[in-house]
Amino acid sequence: MLNFTFHNPTAIVFGEGSITQLSERIPAGARVLLLYGGSSAEKNGTLKEVRAALHGRDVHEFGGIEPNPTYETLMRAVELVRANNLDFLLAVGGGSVIDGTKFVAAAVNFQGDPWEILESHGTVVSGAMPFGSVLTLPATGSEMNSGAVITRRASKAKLSFLSDHVFPRFSILDPTKTNSLPERQLANGVVDAFTHVMEQYLNYPAGVLIQDRFAESLLQTLIEIGPRVLQPQPDNEARANLMWVATLALNGLISAGVPEDWSTHMIGHEITALHDIDHARTLAMVLPANLKVRRVAKRAKLLQYAERVWHLNDGSEETRIDAAIARTEAFFESLGVPTRLSAYQLDARAIDPIVSQLDAHGMTSLGERNDVTLAVSRQILEAAL
Amino acid sequence: MLNFTFHNPTAIVFGEGSITQLSERIPAGARVLLLYGGSSAEKNGTLKEVRAALHGRDVHEFGGIEPNPTYETLMRAVELVRANNLDFLLAVGGGSVIDGTKFVAAAVNFQGDPWEILESHGTVVSGAMPFGSVLTLPATGSEMNSGAVITRRASKAKLSFLSDHVFPRFSILDPTKTNSLPERQLANGVVDAFTHVMEQYLNYPAGVLIQDRFAESLLQTLIEIGPRVLQPQPDNEARANLMWVATLALNGLISAGVPEDWSTHMIGHEITALHDIDHARTLAMVLPANLKVRRVAKRAKLLQYAERVWHLNDGSEETRIDAAIARTEAFFESLGVPTRLSAYQLDARAIDPIVSQLDAHGMTSLGERNDVTLAVSRQILEAAL
Repeated sequence: MLNFTFHNPTAIVFGEGSITQLSERIPAGARVLLLYGGSSAEKNGTLKEVRAALHGRDVHEFGGIEPNPTYETLMRAVELVRANNLDFLLAVGGGSVIDGTKFVAAAVNFQGDPWEILESHGTVVSGAMPFGSVLTLPATGSEMNSGAVITRRASKAKLSFLSDHVFPRFSILDPTKTNSLPERQLANGVVDAFTHVMEQYLNYPAGVLIQDRFAESLLQTLIEIGPRVLQPQPDNEARANLMWVATLALNGLISAGVPEDWSTHMIGHEITALHDIDHARTLAMVLPANLKVRRVAKRAKLLQYAERVWHLNDGSEETRIDAAIARTEAFFESLGVPTRLSAYQLDARAIDPIVSQLDAHGMTSLGERNDVTLAVSRQILEAAL
Repeated sequence: MLNFTFHNPTAIVFGEGSITQLSERIPAGARVLLLYGGSSAEKNGTLKEVRAALHGRDVHEFGGIEPNPTYETLMRAVELVRANNLDFLLAVGGGSVIDGTKFVAAAVNFQGDPWEILESHGTVVSGAMPFGSVLTLPATGSEMNSGAVITRRASKAKLSFLSDHVFPRFSILDPTKTNSLPERQLANGVVDAFTHVMEQYLNYPAGVLIQDRFAESLLQTLIEIGPRVLQPQPDNEARANLMWVATLALNGLISAGVPEDWSTHMIGHEITALHDIDHARTLAMVLPANLKVRRVAKRAKLLQYAERVWHLNDGSEETRIDAAIARTEAFFESLGVPTRLSAYQLDARAIDPIVSQLDAHGMTSLGERNDVTLAVSRQILEAAL
């Protein structure tokens, strides 16, 4: 087990009806900016509930934060906060809105070009505005962590930053708010959470017995509830578990003391930035290919994954590893999420530009052993064709 | 899943050598009271390391906090804090020292008789001094929760309190500090953590799929590392996992959204208060008896426990439940921890006074369904003879 610090100060308020607790969570007298995305939070009634809970407060609004939130859009929110001297942010939405809000929180009082926040991956952040969130889409874990991913439209760069200053003060998780989500977004959420766990779990044996078992618990639960959350009639038990699992998948718990990978995400980010494919859908293509290409380095954990998550105990070690990767692909496909670049009409010609962007962003030695060079990333992309 | 709030603000600093980070964690200029227990923290060098890390600071000391820390002793620490106008507490020890420090933190500025803190189970606490801890004994989870158990010597009352104001600001967990612990304390730690998990897990099906799997992960890991931590040559991997498992067993994570039991603890507390038997050793006697007596109400979860934790898949349901309880007893016994009152020369005559104390402390409807009446507690004690 590696030495670690675990400190997650976000308060989670979980359950049906929990939006009514908003007024206790936001300081009295706060001048609030409510941030949200497209029309779904409006249509499903979440925004209405939020406005009701904040009735009588000084609340401004900023809508239109896009999936893969852009620097260009968010800088308009930064200007709005500055112009109106607002002092508390409230994100209502999924990971994109919460990620965007983290950037706004860090950028408002930042001295210098706010894009440095992304270029430095957060090291230049020395403070941030307080903010909370109301989560409507279980997937990214942004509601209980200190990371965010922001895209610059002009340069097609999708970069991430981390800072202890951008943990939400609170996040409200009402699983019934997922009832109006389209199947595609629920499926994406399952794949996103699954891949978050795999990035922290499928590395090499590091004596992290309990972290491994927690990761396996999250994966097994996702496999169990994945088909259930896609059923047209909302399955409350499955949706509540998905919402909490997606949070726990990326809140620092299972990564504490663990060597982490994240190469699948870094490659996936470039695919989204270049081809506008949903984040989770890029992960579904890259993860299985990544496991195939790096099966020697990841051998011991692939065998553990085969046994404990997929209960594959028969046949040779190679057979079990093959089967575990095949089951992973089949699980994603069963949710309606393709696992091949060809599903998006991308062929071998797409690879050079993706590798060039990885190079441009310094992604030349990824993974838990820093051995995912650009050549390895190319192999992974080839395996995903 | 029940609605819940999860908010655990304690920072965990984990790993060999982490005591050196003390100086960054305690505010500059703080007037510190260092609290500890008997001579073990002195002998094993932990206190020496702590003093070195605080060199040049304004540090007072208060030693002699006993196992099952007493109100009488702790009130002397309260006086010391008041007399010297100290403003930060640092607990160095196991659960007893940390629990005691929580009481001191809550009592120093309490208006009224501080025993009310226990009698109200913490509801009267409206603030507390800041404090941190350096953990030397993995067992109770006190290093990352807001609960404490205090004994009043005069009345042989052992009562608990909970308050959000008494989360440690930080806890330093260096697993190598367990290397000098006697086998008895390590075995107690395993049993204590195991029982903490069982109180939160072995209830009734409540749609808490991920909490159940996390609980099963903790139990499986304890079963795996239990024998390893008792080996004379320290097994670093096992000890690091025990330290982190014991913390995770009672930090609010696996209880979020879950109906909890805790009747084993309440009965065990009375046994300790009357007979001065180690806390964990009372749990080892009460837990198996409790499962036997309440096997009908707990049937579904006992079957799940049999299958997932002990891999008991053969035979009738009754056979599997019997086997799971027997395996639990055998596990405790294998650690050198007896599971019968008779091991402490207690017979049927011991039961009346224990039941009377439960009655005196209002423990008349315990458990996840409030159906553990005094009559049921008596049956449990009879089953533990």
